[in-house]
Amino acid sequence: MSESKFHFVAFSGSLRRGSYNTMALHAAQKLAPSHITITQEDISDIPLYNADLHTGHFPEHVAYLVKQIRQSDGVLIVSPEYNYSIPGVLKNAIDMLSRHPDKPFDNKAVAIMGASIGQVGTARMQYHLRQVMVFLNAYAVNRPEVMIAKAQDKFDEQGNLTDETAKKQIPQLLEALATLSEKLKAAG
Amino acid sequence: MSESKFHFVAFSGSLRRGSYNTMALHAAQKLAPSHITITQEDISDIPLYNADLHTGHFPEHVAYLVKQIRQSDGVLIVSPEYNYSIPGVLKNAIDMLSRHPDKPFDNKAVAIMGASIGQVGTARMQYHLRQVMVFLNAYAVNRPEVMIAKAQDKFDEQGNLTDETAKKQIPQLLEALATLSEKLKAAG
Amino acid sequence: MSESKFHFVAFSGSLRRGSYNTMALHAAQKLAPSHITITQEDISDIPLYNADLHTGHFPEHVAYLVKQIRQSDGVLIVSPEYNYSIPGVLKNAIDMLSRHPDKPFDNKAVAIMGASIGQVGTARMQYHLRQVMVFLNAYAVNRPEVMIAKAQDKFDEQGNLTDETAKKQIPQLLEALATLSEKLKAAG
Amino acid sequence: MSESKFHFVAFSGSLRRGSYNTMALHAAQKLAPSHITITQEDISDIPLYNADLHTGHFPEHVAYLVKQIRQSDGVLIVSPEYNYSIPGVLKNAIDMLSRHPDKPFDNKAVAIMGASIGQVGTARMQYHLRQVMVFLNAYAVNRPEVMIAKAQDKFDEQGNLTDETAKKQIPQLLEALATLSEKLKAAG
Repeated sequence: MSESKFHFVAFSGSLRRGSYNTMALHAAQKLAPSHITITQEDISDIPLYNADLHTGHFPEHVAYLVKQIRQSDGVLIVSPEYNYSIPGVLKNAIDMLSRHPDKPFDNKAVAIMGASIGQVGTARMQYHLRQVMVFLNAYAVNRPEVMIAKAQDKFDEQGNLTDETAKKQIPQLLEALATLSEKLKAAG
Repeated sequence: MSESKFHFVAFSGSLRRGSYNTMALHAAQKLAPSHITITQEDISDIPLYNADLHTGHFPEHVAYLVKQIRQSDGVLIVSPEYNYSIPGVLKNAIDMLSRHPDKPFDNKAVAIMGASIGQVGTARMQYHLRQVMVFLNAYAVNRPEVMIAKAQDKFDEQGNLTDETAKKQIPQLLEALATLSEKLKAAG
Repeated sequence: MSESKFHFVAFSGSLRRGSYNTMALHAAQKLAPSHITITQEDISDIPLYNADLHTGHFPEHVAYLVKQIRQSDGVLIVSPEYNYSIPGVLKNAIDMLSRHPDKPFDNKAVAIMGASIGQVGTARMQYHLRQVMVFLNAYAVNRPEVMIAKAQDKFDEQGNLTDETAKKQIPQLLEALATLSEKLKAAG
Repeated sequence: MSESKFHFVAFSGSLRRGSYNTMALHAAQKLAPSHITITQEDISDIPLYNADLHTGHFPEHVAYLVKQIRQSDGVLIVSPEYNYSIPGVLKNAIDMLSRHPDKPFDNKAVAIMGASIGQVGTARMQYHLRQVMVFLNAYAVNRPEVMIAKAQDKFDEQGNLTDETAKKQIPQLLEALATLSEKLKAAG
């Protein structure tokens, strides 16, 4: 395993305070191996994308996020599934960020995970998001796929992740993101 | 063909004024057979969905849209493809509408069309949107699939649709939506 | 609920004898309400589709299957997920059947279910299969989605389905298939 | 660009002799830069996968293909779209190969291209195939996406590719496959 240090930017696809996905993102921060740091960034104030308003005129916070992503070694997206796809909130943030001329996702390593109260654990959201990454020319980690089903049973009252499978998989996902990040930077 | 009259609600997935998709929506209004009327509704002011804010507290315009959809015979969605999927703006509107207890899309007939400057004509957006419809228990018309590629060559300077294929397909799609709407209302 | 009688043709996407999916198909036959009958048909001898060999020259069994589907009120597909998609065996059968000039799936009601040893219960296969149905102009039932996860724990040693959720959902799926079938036949 | 030599294994998803996709595969062989060689392998004799017959008993040709893939620097898949998804013939070959204990696709670089007579140029097939690659832990090249639409106009009578866009994109795709292959072999 690499001795390098890695810094990832993380987004939660849910805006509500008690979100299982935000809890899972915080779990990732705690479970990260010592050579990996993760900074959560906020997408709650990104306006609805409108080409008339935003072409060449990005909100300050969007410009900040673009810079954070570009300076990072990878992006961690932790999101619920809404209506069998990506939450509009998260997709709108990606739409806005993607229009920035600095193309923050280009050739970037990305890891996807999600939590849902149903059985499928956000699988449908994750494959839609993988397709988005093709357009963005980002590369999403293949394995492990962290899909936390029945999320209502997987966190304690303080919001700590209690599920043993997820607690084992999340550090593996972060290591895989570091590895993919390093590979994408290697000479091709 | 049915003698009944049909009324559809239509949404454009793009907020910009000169949107090819909004032009295509207007073309559908003009090309509609005489027994079909189409009302465009606006989604530009729907806020980012946040369960903390919106559970049981829907903006007035959202409640209005829910009512319009429920009273309609079907929904026409005309949308661009952003980053190989549904625009966040449109997905967020669907996410918000879907949380309303009146479940506006339940058992509703839906038609999807789109315009893009690329070759694929929004196909990727359309299949993601069809998957969303499964969750919503809406039924999307299978044929014709209206995918207006190279949209920059398909409208005149006044924004009128000039493409012969699309001009033929759009009334077919509207008739198919009327037919499916009638079937879904039939006794099962 | 309709007093009509319905007859469905069913296919298993797995060829192995001890297939959980074939067991689930047999469970559907047993759990079917009295006005619904289900006949399992075999796809194990359908050759690999090759337009040079099969254009206008369908194997006898293929012609038989086309006829059975056309005379049925609907099709039930019960399939595993192979490599996150439709098994090649099942897809090849559909490819072959779809080339027959009688177009057996056209305007046909279809129900999809599946069993897998993993957590996701064939969801990925099911959405790919739904996309196939769009091309075939078949309409797939939206609900309930029967996804039998951890299938190794859901059948007894005689191959009988023991899972209470699935035992409740399967008759609902069959009723929904009957209802959709009736609607599709209704005047539009 | 790397000075290394690369060897790719290529499959056509169509069995018919006059296949546009096999023509496109041959075009790739001709258009390959001098440091890249491509060997076409045949999948026409792979039997329908049946776990009862094939668990631990792979046909000799399957074992040969597994070895060829493992020894290659990458895999090129050139395929039509059947019924809005992967041809059963191709999917069955992948299903069979994937069950081999040597896991030929694991950590392998893959490039996807396709030709179709329609407008969409196999896009739907390509995204389904990309999802398959996630399970196989293969990494598919993001760009360029080679989607040869209206294929009947893109080859001459001798089967040579005449489309300038595709002739430009195919060498780019092969270089991108070489680059990704090298990156995946790099220390992570």
